[in-house]
Amino acid sequence: MSTTTTPPLYRQLATHYRGAIEAGALQPGTRMPSLRSLMRLHDISLSTALQLCRTLESDGWAEARERSGYFVRRPQRLRMAQMDEPLAGLRPDPAQYVGIHGQVSDFVARRRAAKVKLNLSIARAAPQFYPAEELRAAMTRALRLWPDVVSSVPPLQGDPHFRSVIAQRAVAAGMAIAPDDVLVTNGCIEALNLALRAVAKPGDTIAVESPTFYGLLQVLESLGLRALEIPTSPQTGLSIEALELAVQTYGDIQALVVVPHLQNPLGSVMPDAHKERLVRLCEAQGIALIEDDTYTELLDAEGTPRALKSWDRTGNVLHCASMHKILAPGLRLGWITAGRWQARVEMLKYTQTRNNEILSQLGAGQFMGTGAYDRHLRRLRTALRGQRERTAEAIATYFPEGTRMNLPPGGLQLWVELPEGCSSAVVFDAALQEGIAIAPGWLFSNNARSDRFLRINCGWPYDDGLDTALRRLGTLAGNAIRVG
Amino acid sequence: MSTTTTPPLYRQLATHYRGAIEAGALQPGTRMPSLRSLMRLHDISLSTALQLCRTLESDGWAEARERSGYFVRRPQRLRMAQMDEPLAGLRPDPAQYVGIHGQVSDFVARRRAAKVKLNLSIARAAPQFYPAEELRAAMTRALRLWPDVVSSVPPLQGDPHFRSVIAQRAVAAGMAIAPDDVLVTNGCIEALNLALRAVAKPGDTIAVESPTFYGLLQVLESLGLRALEIPTSPQTGLSIEALELAVQTYGDIQALVVVPHLQNPLGSVMPDAHKERLVRLCEAQGIALIEDDTYTELLDAEGTPRALKSWDRTGNVLHCASMHKILAPGLRLGWITAGRWQARVEMLKYTQTRNNEILSQLGAGQFMGTGAYDRHLRRLRTALRGQRERTAEAIATYFPEGTRMNLPPGGLQLWVELPEGCSSAVVFDAALQEGIAIAPGWLFSNNARSDRFLRINCGWPYDDGLDTALRRLGTLAGNAIRVG
Repeated sequence: MSTTTTPPLYRQLATHYRGAIEAGALQPGTRMPSLRSLMRLHDISLSTALQLCRTLESDGWAEARERSGYFVRRPQRLRMAQMDEPLAGLRPDPAQYVGIHGQVSDFVARRRAAKVKLNLSIARAAPQFYPAEELRAAMTRALRLWPDVVSSVPPLQGDPHFRSVIAQRAVAAGMAIAPDDVLVTNGCIEALNLALRAVAKPGDTIAVESPTFYGLLQVLESLGLRALEIPTSPQTGLSIEALELAVQTYGDIQALVVVPHLQNPLGSVMPDAHKERLVRLCEAQGIALIEDDTYTELLDAEGTPRALKSWDRTGNVLHCASMHKILAPGLRLGWITAGRWQARVEMLKYTQTRNNEILSQLGAGQFMGTGAYDRHLRRLRTALRGQRERTAEAIATYFPEGTRMNLPPGGLQLWVELPEGCSSAVVFDAALQEGIAIAPGWLFSNNARSDRFLRINCGWPYDDGLDTALRRLGTLAGNAIRVG
Repeated sequence: MSTTTTPPLYRQLATHYRGAIEAGALQPGTRMPSLRSLMRLHDISLSTALQLCRTLESDGWAEARERSGYFVRRPQRLRMAQMDEPLAGLRPDPAQYVGIHGQVSDFVARRRAAKVKLNLSIARAAPQFYPAEELRAAMTRALRLWPDVVSSVPPLQGDPHFRSVIAQRAVAAGMAIAPDDVLVTNGCIEALNLALRAVAKPGDTIAVESPTFYGLLQVLESLGLRALEIPTSPQTGLSIEALELAVQTYGDIQALVVVPHLQNPLGSVMPDAHKERLVRLCEAQGIALIEDDTYTELLDAEGTPRALKSWDRTGNVLHCASMHKILAPGLRLGWITAGRWQARVEMLKYTQTRNNEILSQLGAGQFMGTGAYDRHLRRLRTALRGQRERTAEAIATYFPEGTRMNLPPGGLQLWVELPEGCSSAVVFDAALQEGIAIAPGWLFSNNARSDRFLRINCGWPYDDGLDTALRRLGTLAGNAIRVG
C-alpha cells in the first residue's frame, strides 16, 4: 500500500479529541480546554485552535455557548434509535412480478420536469471526488500508444491488462480468478442482466434483498422474472433464516442477488460467518448466487473484506462489479466472473452488445495498476465519511421525533425511517416542488411497508445550501405526518 | 458534398477503357492499343501506360498474351450464372426456435483454435481503411475540452451533438427525426436487442430474411423468440409475396427484421416500390418493422437511398444503425429511433446497460460533422468495389463449374452458391486446416438448403496471398463435390 497524504494539523487534533470523547475521557457537557490552553498545549496558533474547535462543532462533537467557549457534546446522530431488525421466523411474501417500470418512469419524468437544484436521490459522489485528470491523461496516452484503438475490434472479454489488474485486486477479497475468468461489461447493470439471463428464464423466481435498489427490480421486471423479497437486516444484510424459510415455503428459487457489502439502500455489511453459510445454502439448494460487489471499496475498514465468491467451490457464485461508483461515473466499466456459467455469459454478452469499447479499459488499467488508485480510494472514503456524518447529524437534528437511522460503515447514502404515519411519497412530492430530490422508499421494494423510508445521497460536499435543504426536508417530513 | 481526392492518372484511364469495353466500343478478343500507342494517345510515360494495362488486367478487363500485348476481355465474373430468385408462391417453413448458439460457439472455438492466417469469415474492412488517425485526434481533443467526460454521467440518450449529426444525415434518407428521437446504443446489435425486446415477448414469432446474418439468429435464440424465415431475393431483398403468404398461413407474426440495403449475406437492395409496399403491409398487419441500416453507406450509388422509416406514418418502424462497419470497428456506436416504442426502448436501454460512454460520440460527432466523413466514405466504397471485383474475378476463375454468384452493388462481402453436391461445411473444415476461415452457409439459416452457400469477406486489400488463398478455396470446393 502506498502512503496517503497527511491531513492538516487541526484535522489531526480533531481526530484526537474525537477519540478522547468516544473513549469517555472527555464527558459530554464538560467544557473543552479554552483556545488559549489549546494553543499552549499543542503549540499551535490561534487560528489553528479555532479551526480545531469549529471542526469538532461541525462534526457534532462540540457546541459553542455564548461567552463560555466550547463544550463537549455527543453527536445527535449517535442518540438516534436504530432501525428494527427483520423479525426472525417471518415468512416472506410470495414471489411476484415487479411492476415498477411505470412508477420509475414517472419518478424520473417528474424529477426531470421539476428542475432539481439539489439531487439527493442518486447514489454517487460529486465529480470532483473522482480522479478525472489522471484518467483523462491515461486515456490520452492510450490513444497515442494504441493506433488501432478505433479501427480494430478488441477481444470480446475485454482488454487483457485491465482484466489482469482486476484479477490481481480480487486476490485481496479472497478470490482466485484468472484474467480469462473476467468478462468486461457495460457497467455492473449489464453484468447483472447477463448473470440473470444465464441462470434463469422468464417466469422464474429470483430472491432479492428487501429493500433493494430499484435498478435491480427494473432488471427483473424487464426480463419477466418474479421477485421474492427476503427480509434484510440494516446491520448484517440478508437474513439467512428468512431465506431458509422462503426455500422451505416456496422451494422454486432459481437465483439470489445479494450485495454483501454496503447494501443499497441499507448500507449493511454481512459478517463472514453469514457469507459462508449463504454460499453453502445456495450450493445445497441449487440456487445460483449472484454477488453484486459495487460498493466494497467504499467500506471504512482495514483491508478488503472477503467476497462471497471466495467461498465458492462449485462455480455457483456469479460475481458482478463495476468501477462506476468508485472510480469513474462517466465510464461503463463493469465486469463479471460467472463460475460455471462463464461460457454462457460470454455468449450472451456477444449477443447483447458484443465487446466493450477498449479505450476506457486501457486508461483505467494504467491508473489502477499504480498506487494512485489506492490513494484515490482512501481520499474518497475519507470525504464520504465526513459527508455521511454531517448529513446524519443534520437528519438527527432536523427530522421529526421518531425518525430512525443506522450509520453505515461506509458508502454513499443514508437510509432513513420516518416516524409512524409519515409517507416518503408525500415528502418526495413536497420536496420536489422546492427543487430537492430524494429517493422515496417505494422505489426499493414491491411491498407497502417501504413508504416509511427514504434514501439520501451523501456524495455532495457538505455546505450551507445542503444544510438548509436537509433542515427543510426535516420540516417537510414533520408536516407529512398524518395525525391519525 | 465536399470534393474528393482525384485518383491517379492510370486509374482514370483504366476507368475510361473499362467504360469503352462495357459500352461495346471495344469488343472482347480484340487487341488493346500497344503501349507505344497509349503513350502517344494520352501523352503518358511508358510506366503509366504499363500501369494502365496491368490495372485493366488485374480488374479482369484485359489479358496479356505472350509477345502479343494486351487483349480486351470480358471479366469471368460477368459470365457467371446468377443465383435463383426465390420461388413465388412457395410457402415459408413454419416459425421455429433457433438453435445455433452451440453451432456458433463451435464455429468460433474452432476458428480460434485453428490459428487462422486469413480470416474471410468476417464482414469488415481492414483497419487501414478507417480514419483512425482523425478519430483519435478528435477524441484526444474531446478529452481536453470536456474535463467531466470520465467523472460525470452523460445523458441516457447519448451526446446531443452526435445525435444531431445523426438526425441531420438521416434527412438524406428521407427520415424526419429530431435529435431527441435518437437513442445511442452499444452498436446495432444492442439496438436490435432493444427493438425486439420492446415489441415482442419470449415465444413470439419474428419474421426474418432467409438467409440472414447469424448475429440476428443468435439474438432471437437468446431472447427465446421464434424465427420465421422469409425467402429473400439475392437482387431485390425480402420477397413481399412470400411475407404475404406467411401472414396468411401463420398469422401470428409479431415483428419483421429487414436489411433493405446490402442485405447480409446476400448484398441485395430493395427497390423503393417494395419498401413502400412492405411498410404498408406491416402497418396493416400490425407487424412491427425493424429496419437494420448497417450497410447503406457502403452502397455504390448516387445519393442516399430512402430508408423504410421514410415511409413510416404511424411510428411502426424501428430504425437501427451503427458506425461499426463504415467508420470505426473499434467503437460501439449504434443508434435506434423506435417510433411509437421510443419510451419503452429507452427504459429497456436504461435497464440493460444504462447510457453509453460518451467519448467516442464526441469524437465521431466532430469528425462526422465535417466533409472528411464523406471523403472517407467515398474512399472506402472505392476500395471495397475494387476488392469485391477482384475477389469475384478470382472466384469466377478458380471455383468449380456450376458455382453461382451475384455481384452486389456495394458492401463488404460476396455470397457464393457452390455447385450441386458441394457442402460449405466440408469446405469450411478443409480450409480451416490450412488457416483460411470462411463463413459456411449454415450460419445464416435454420434450414438445410443453406449448406450449399458460403460468405467471403472482401474487406482485405487484394494481394498475392489472398489470390493464392482464393485459388486454394476453389480447389477445396471442387474436392468437396460429392459424386452422387
